[in-house]
Amino acid sequence: MPLRYDFASDNVAGAMPEAIEALVAANTGFAAGYGADHIGKRAADLIRQLLDADAVVRFVPSGTAANALTIAALAAPHEAVICHQDSHIATDETGAPGFFGAGVGLIKLGGGSGRIHPADLDAPLAMGDSGHHQSPAALSITNTTEYGALYTEAAVAALVGAAKAAGLKTHLDGARLANAAASGFDPASVAKLGFDVAVVGGTKAGGTPTEAIVLIDKALARRFDARMKHAGQLVSKGRFLAAPWIGMLETGAWVRRAAHANAMAKKLAASMPFPMLHPVESNGVFVEMDEPTLKRLQAEGWFVYRFIDGSVRFMCSWATTDEAVEELGAALQAIA
Amino acid sequence: MPLRYDFASDNVAGAMPEAIEALVAANTGFAAGYGADHIGKRAADLIRQLLDADAVVRFVPSGTAANALTIAALAAPHEAVICHQDSHIATDETGAPGFFGAGVGLIKLGGGSGRIHPADLDAPLAMGDSGHHQSPAALSITNTTEYGALYTEAAVAALVGAAKAAGLKTHLDGARLANAAASGFDPASVAKLGFDVAVVGGTKAGGTPTEAIVLIDKALARRFDARMKHAGQLVSKGRFLAAPWIGMLETGAWVRRAAHANAMAKKLAASMPFPMLHPVESNGVFVEMDEPTLKRLQAEGWFVYRFIDGSVRFMCSWATTDEAVEELGAALQAIA
Amino acid sequence: MPLRYDFASDNVAGAMPEAIEALVAANTGFAAGYGADHIGKRAADLIRQLLDADAVVRFVPSGTAANALTIAALAAPHEAVICHQDSHIATDETGAPGFFGAGVGLIKLGGGSGRIHPADLDAPLAMGDSGHHQSPAALSITNTTEYGALYTEAAVAALVGAAKAAGLKTHLDGARLANAAASGFDPASVAKLGFDVAVVGGTKAGGTPTEAIVLIDKALARRFDARMKHAGQLVSKGRFLAAPWIGMLETGAWVRRAAHANAMAKKLAASMPFPMLHPVESNGVFVEMDEPTLKRLQAEGWFVYRFIDGSVRFMCSWATTDEAVEELGAALQAIA
Amino acid sequence: MPLRYDFASDNVAGAMPEAIEALVAANTGFAAGYGADHIGKRAADLIRQLLDADAVVRFVPSGTAANALTIAALAAPHEAVICHQDSHIATDETGAPGFFGAGVGLIKLGGGSGRIHPADLDAPLAMGDSGHHQSPAALSITNTTEYGALYTEAAVAALVGAAKAAGLKTHLDGARLANAAASGFDPASVAKLGFDVAVVGGTKAGGTPTEAIVLIDKALARRFDARMKHAGQLVSKGRFLAAPWIGMLETGAWVRRAAHANAMAKKLAASMPFPMLHPVESNGVFVEMDEPTLKRLQAEGWFVYRFIDGSVRFMCSWATTDEAVEELGAALQAIA
Repeated sequence: MPLRYDFASDNVAGAMPEAIEALVAANTGFAAGYGADHIGKRAADLIRQLLDADAVVRFVPSGTAANALTIAALAAPHEAVICHQDSHIATDETGAPGFFGAGVGLIKLGGGSGRIHPADLDAPLAMGDSGHHQSPAALSITNTTEYGALYTEAAVAALVGAAKAAGLKTHLDGARLANAAASGFDPASVAKLGFDVAVVGGTKAGGTPTEAIVLIDKALARRFDARMKHAGQLVSKGRFLAAPWIGMLETGAWVRRAAHANAMAKKLAASMPFPMLHPVESNGVFVEMDEPTLKRLQAEGWFVYRFIDGSVRFMCSWATTDEAVEELGAALQAIA
Repeated sequence: MPLRYDFASDNVAGAMPEAIEALVAANTGFAAGYGADHIGKRAADLIRQLLDADAVVRFVPSGTAANALTIAALAAPHEAVICHQDSHIATDETGAPGFFGAGVGLIKLGGGSGRIHPADLDAPLAMGDSGHHQSPAALSITNTTEYGALYTEAAVAALVGAAKAAGLKTHLDGARLANAAASGFDPASVAKLGFDVAVVGGTKAGGTPTEAIVLIDKALARRFDARMKHAGQLVSKGRFLAAPWIGMLETGAWVRRAAHANAMAKKLAASMPFPMLHPVESNGVFVEMDEPTLKRLQAEGWFVYRFIDGSVRFMCSWATTDEAVEELGAALQAIA
Repeated sequence: MPLRYDFASDNVAGAMPEAIEALVAANTGFAAGYGADHIGKRAADLIRQLLDADAVVRFVPSGTAANALTIAALAAPHEAVICHQDSHIATDETGAPGFFGAGVGLIKLGGGSGRIHPADLDAPLAMGDSGHHQSPAALSITNTTEYGALYTEAAVAALVGAAKAAGLKTHLDGARLANAAASGFDPASVAKLGFDVAVVGGTKAGGTPTEAIVLIDKALARRFDARMKHAGQLVSKGRFLAAPWIGMLETGAWVRRAAHANAMAKKLAASMPFPMLHPVESNGVFVEMDEPTLKRLQAEGWFVYRFIDGSVRFMCSWATTDEAVEELGAALQAIA
Repeated sequence: MPLRYDFASDNVAGAMPEAIEALVAANTGFAAGYGADHIGKRAADLIRQLLDADAVVRFVPSGTAANALTIAALAAPHEAVICHQDSHIATDETGAPGFFGAGVGLIKLGGGSGRIHPADLDAPLAMGDSGHHQSPAALSITNTTEYGALYTEAAVAALVGAAKAAGLKTHLDGARLANAAASGFDPASVAKLGFDVAVVGGTKAGGTPTEAIVLIDKALARRFDARMKHAGQLVSKGRFLAAPWIGMLETGAWVRRAAHANAMAKKLAASMPFPMLHPVESNGVFVEMDEPTLKRLQAEGWFVYRFIDGSVRFMCSWATTDEAVEELGAALQAIA
């Protein structure tokens, strides 16, 4: 019996038809390299529309790289970035921010379900400068969070406002911004909320490997292509990173299919026989499950695993089917 | 009149049908992330067959990254890599080796048409250790070279042999290994010749963005996935980097289409009215052309530019057509 | 009233007479640069005697650099070093390990008074390799700890043994090894216990700025001078870093004066009217003190501050006098 | 017969009496650490007087580090610094700029005796931005040069003016600024000429290990202590780096003794029987000498060596005696 990866992550799915079709359509004729072609321009325009922002847009193949590269543009090596202790940059990038940022530090805050509490910003923002620690230069927020929780625009405004007031730059890890959008967070608010940089996720939303780096603070765009190539992130046949965005955004599939993923998570949650440890506000369901039970589930062929906080995580994606949710639901009932 | 990019580079072409078809075919069902899926395994097997080597194979989306990441695995920050002064790592990667290698040095040698002369290795190999310079730890060879020249297996053997005898590691930048293969260099010789690492080019050969990192010295494979993610090079939906290789290698198109590219360069050379500055041994033609003439050619809509050595470069690819060569030939005759 | 820094740290003292006299004595004639002189050789011999180890010894002017430079030699950028969460490398080096190590990670463990518990090593040593985290490559132990606590040889043996058994390298931060030695930890045990690298502290012991890097695993010595210069740590007039060691070690003052510092801490502790939060096993006293009381003490001119764990720290050094301890004791009684 | 290092370099000398006396004098009482003490303040004041500049001053123990650390503050990793191809940062720092600058590039220019010609700046300043190379962000000038040549204030003005006009930052490597000052270059012109950062050499001038980093563009001073500690350059007992400056500057010995060194070089040149390859404008004499002759000289016990350009270099220092010059002169006559 082959393992079923359906719920292991939202990156185990392939690419949605709209993305693949646009990629295939982009594969005609010759085009300037390194993102300077008409496909890249069109995709950038669509991202700017989505975020309602006059920004410089670039595409890279990895979300880890998109985060680490932009963080390195916001904080010097002897400075730090404030983030949630369970954020992707803190837990799941194998130290990439420290590599791209030549030892840049992370100041890790707690907070339920991956959300930073505004009050927890007080201490790091009041640290003051010193030779003996890495003072904060930027704040990074992830929406939706690693636990599928949603920041509302008001919640983001409080955090970003406090950070900006203290002179920090701000970074949005939007690897799952499509899921946030489908749950009510307006992508067109990103620039207005004051983010200097946003990483907008294409891969988990249903693209082939592609993430959009959106430089809202256009001063950051100076020599950014050189920064990208220096860091191994400037792909020569850039059209293949840009094209999927055209398919996903022109058709509205980027948010529509994220809504489907979110709905699948709600459906799974509705019949979940295990205690849920985080609110189901997007495409993930996190449950409490003891080890023998998890082993039984895995023995049934479902590849899922224990997440950072000890919960067992079930992720839905654009490709998750009603049938799969029902099959998983039955398997869960059987072992509960 | 839109600019014609046909001859600007071999990365202005799209992907060959075999690559795209394999990519589309790979887009079914769920698959483990980060390269650990059956598509990645199949592609790695094909690379191992191609090189006749029991090696660890990984795929990354950028040739610059593939080079810089592996160089950083071969030389410590306080050491250096010997390379040709016009090699891609020395001239066209915006300092990426220094970034990935935390300040690793390059010892740049001359040599006609991008080829290193064995005699020029003597001095750096005899440098000895010192606190005051970066002693060589590795040798990097590019085949075919930046100027389209081919190293024969014997020529490589002399260089690699000298380097290995001096205790250095060896690196093959094979961004255009398909073109070398089509000109008679046997890919199955790579491991036998003693390379520790080879980067095998997929993008310029006609893939979507993908390069194969081949760790022939398997000791280098330890924690290499962590090295990749740390450096922003571990793509989650890895199947899309692996799949094109299945299409290109199972069908033989990787080398067959490189042979076409090489033939197109030969055809262009045959009627070239300008002095050629390098032997036409693969898919590029490099000519002497004064600035007013170049301007006239560009005014005719042909986007080509002056290369590192001052020559004007014309690159052919899998997608170059006989008609295009003839049209360019006519344009060149008209301005000569 | 000028502030009294006596108890602020053990680096607010000057250099002991033995160190200064040796430094002045070394200032005669010409000598080879970069540590290759007879003074450097003599100092290295004395360090080897002290540690009873056939090791390569180098001198650098900063303890932070000594730690970060050697950690970078023990762990690759995509790997991690296990340390105590309150260790100097984790809390007081402004991210230097991440800089020298190109993003190398730290795995931070708890443990009372800065000591790691052997049982807490189990989890990180069992992590296994993965692309998604920085696996441990080395263990760093500090003796005495940031809180003045002493590891016995048996305690070190348990930690180092477990780390070595798991294939890790081991690092001793001995910035206060003199204080440890004065409290019974035998410096001659360092190599026998299995450390691959030891940093032996000269500055806090009473030197001018100098720390000894001891490469017990001599394989690490290959091209180490180049590593030092590359990292800005190879001082040209190396004799001035080496000479103080001759004065401190030939006379026995290095450990004898540390014993004095330890005795001063014991004396201070004996009449301390505030609860002590850590055992007084070397030259520091850490007490619980509320903020108004601390402010009163500072208003009396005593420059001391709140340490990492919230305690107020009093550090003694070779230069601490009985009178000063009595004056401070009286001030503490007055405000208690 | 012990080797005579007198002329091997200007760092083989010890420290001048004024420096040592000030260092010893500074060794009294307790003082705040990390440069924040009264000795550091006094030394910084003297540097500011010397340069007639309202600048932020810090002290580090290594000239390589002083250069690399400040270069990293002037240019981003994906940018480059223009320098002479034989400058210390390009040839004698084992790649330190690339390490401190996370892969920052060097654009190396030619020019007789280590001096950059203004006309040679035209090409790099006109490079323009591109994703494919590291565009210049700063210019570094060394005075006096590696070959003992002097830039006049007018010559510096031309270079710095052109660089500033193009938007670059400017860096002075003044490791031998004392020698330049003794030859007529006014240190008080440094800020007026437009340098953003100057490294003022203490070690080669006759100090114990200490170099002054002068941040003339005070915006660079933000969080510079953290930058220093992060890079292993913030020494805890900072007074020992600052004190020598008080001795050297208060007494005028810094420039007076450099004048002596320069005079010794003139004296050596006056009777030099070998062709001199560079003008003797400060404290070095560079001659053409074949290998057998050099070997004979070395066999006579004179430790000198072949420099970057193939010349044999004789360096004088504050400690060079008339007698030594005469003895060397006699030896040279004997082997000529």
